Amino acid sequence: MSGKMASCIFCKIIKGEIPCFKLFESDKTLAFLDINPLSKGHALVIPKHHGEKLTDIPDDQLAEVLPTVKKLAAATGANEWNLLQNNGKGAHQEVGHVHFHMIPKPNAEEGLGISWPQQKTDMDALKKLFEDVKGKM
Amino acid sequence: MSGKMASCIFCKIIKGEIPCFKLFESDKTLAFLDINPLSKGHALVIPKHHGEKLTDIPDDQLAEVLPTVKKLAAATGANEWNLLQNNGKGAHQEVGHVHFHMIPKPNAEEGLGISWPQQKTDMDALKKLFEDVKGKM
Repeated sequence: MSGKMASCIFCKIIKGEIPCFKLFESDKTLAFLDINPLSKGHALVIPKHHGEKLTDIPDDQLAEVLPTVKKLAAATGANEWNLLQNNGKGAHQEVGHVHFHMIPKPNAEEGLGISWPQQKTDMDALKKLFEDVKGKM
Repeated sequence: MSGKMASCIFCKIIKGEIPCFKLFESDKTLAFLDINPLSKGHALVIPKHHGEKLTDIPDDQLAEVLPTVKKLAAATGANEWNLLQNNGKGAHQEVGHVHFHMIPKPNAEEGLGISWPQQKTDMDALKKLFEDVKGKM
């Protein structure tokens, strides 16, 4: 085990060294309530495979994530809600183990706050970007 | 076809009636650049199956979503980035066909703006909620 895994709070939760309000568990996936919620029902889904960013997790280890998020949304009775997964500290990631937030949005005050600094549409720049990215897919 | 599908802008993109900067396509999944980006490389992944909220989409129609998001993040060279999927107008959903945003976060000004109105941790309330939700999973 790497040092990062040994000190990872989510790896400790997976191993049962730290308790959690466990809502779902399989060989690849764990879901539990966030104990610092933004709204009632705020829960996390994590792959058991340790990795900081989504690109660090093999596809097969992610197969149950979205089905589990759907189950959480249904079980909490969330009507409107956000699914958020942050990659990197600059992108608001606070624990260095991939996690997906299912955050009910019951009203304007509770739940995830979003601001949307939309840029001007620049079709020439988009076309250039498209050619570049398409070549790397 | 239902009226909702006939008027859905993403269903029109899927059918090729509206052009897009298409980065990936399979029988279930489409990915393309967002033409109103929050940052350079902002792209969308959508299931071809029409549905407003994630809970409306069958699991098998979602199988390629996260692998495609990973490909987009790698191909755009995003280092820090957010994955966001909004369910409901109150949760900032603007098109009523499930879509996943891959939004690079190159700096504090560009990309997704997040505010985090964290609530006080109330272990008694969490325990009660846990029993309720667990019973519905």
